[in-house]
Amino acid sequence: MSTAWLRVPDQIYARSFAIIRAEAELDRLPPALVPLALRVVHACGMVEVASRLAWQGDPATAGRAALAAGRPVIADCRMVASGIIRRRLPAGTEILCGLDCDETAAIAARDGTTRSAAALDALGDRLAGAVVAIGNAPTALFRLLEIIAAGGPRPAAILAFPVGFVGAAESKQALIEAGCGVPFLTLPGRMGGSAMASAAVNALWAPNEEGG
Amino acid sequence: MSTAWLRVPDQIYARSFAIIRAEAELDRLPPALVPLALRVVHACGMVEVASRLAWQGDPATAGRAALAAGRPVIADCRMVASGIIRRRLPAGTEILCGLDCDETAAIAARDGTTRSAAALDALGDRLAGAVVAIGNAPTALFRLLEIIAAGGPRPAAILAFPVGFVGAAESKQALIEAGCGVPFLTLPGRMGGSAMASAAVNALWAPNEEGG
Repeated sequence: MSTAWLRVPDQIYARSFAIIRAEAELDRLPPALVPLALRVVHACGMVEVASRLAWQGDPATAGRAALAAGRPVIADCRMVASGIIRRRLPAGTEILCGLDCDETAAIAARDGTTRSAAALDALGDRLAGAVVAIGNAPTALFRLLEIIAAGGPRPAAILAFPVGFVGAAESKQALIEAGCGVPFLTLPGRMGGSAMASAAVNALWAPNEEGG
Repeated sequence: MSTAWLRVPDQIYARSFAIIRAEAELDRLPPALVPLALRVVHACGMVEVASRLAWQGDPATAGRAALAAGRPVIADCRMVASGIIRRRLPAGTEILCGLDCDETAAIAARDGTTRSAAALDALGDRLAGAVVAIGNAPTALFRLLEIIAAGGPRPAAILAFPVGFVGAAESKQALIEAGCGVPFLTLPGRMGGSAMASAAVNALWAPNEEGG
């Protein structure tokens, strides 16, 4: 094998983002969303994802304001939480995952639902004004829409990347059709994942491209 | 929005895997690799990934034997580690990430390389006989191939899903061309990610499809 591989982190980042800028369809996006799209594409290796992103309102500015106000980031699973780069967020930003709440399992059993959905109920008022990042569970997004529709706590922004074959496309379509007034970014269809959700969070506060 | 979303975890899993079996090109795979392919597809929402997987030897059987022998799983990043479902592995299986080794940063600075590559040096003999799961860094895979080529510790199996625009395709091609004799499963090209790498690990020991 060749040993001529690029080893310098800053050079790898710079070249990666130059390739994405050259290949991805970024012109269709509002400027505030471009940093999020760049990092989402970077996370999955697929430039075509930039062509498929959907949004309402300005989730980048709303998410940034939430972080400035000290609101938490709420992840639907531990992979999303572990993919968030703390030094790219304001110092002290809380990253919460409702799966870690003591009462989540009991709520799931009581309601006959997934722990991912119950986790949002367990978080209660912590949802209010938070940045919600969903990278796994369609049921988390479905439940979040129910909570909002019922007049419950409203997050500041939703970064919605549930993935898979049952409910992922449907939950994202429900978000698009809900008209709930919460700004969001999403990727319609089956594709998504924790890396995309984390990447969108990682672009909110420090929208420069460098640094992992 | 409709409230008719599927909430029961076992039903969601069963329906998901039925869809994947109906749509994915699984016939091209050796039977031992089918559980890994199913979970990799499940993790990314793209059935076409099953058509593009590449392998040498039998990484499923080799990985399973390594777990039975008490060898660790080595993840290239914390997202891969956090995506591994411990109850799907033998009790007590160690999940290591070399980024957590004390000496990794110093090795990276000394060698002018990434922490992801230095992490493999920091792990030293722990690599021997281990299951290595790479879901992020091409430099980790490049460095692993160098270590093996230099006569260093040899893992039992490599699950290689580095992702991105600089080095991901090249590192996986290098793995395919290396002929190093270590069984591997990989996805050529830019695509990959932590979720795919974790999913492949999660299929090794308990190849049944149910359970998240």
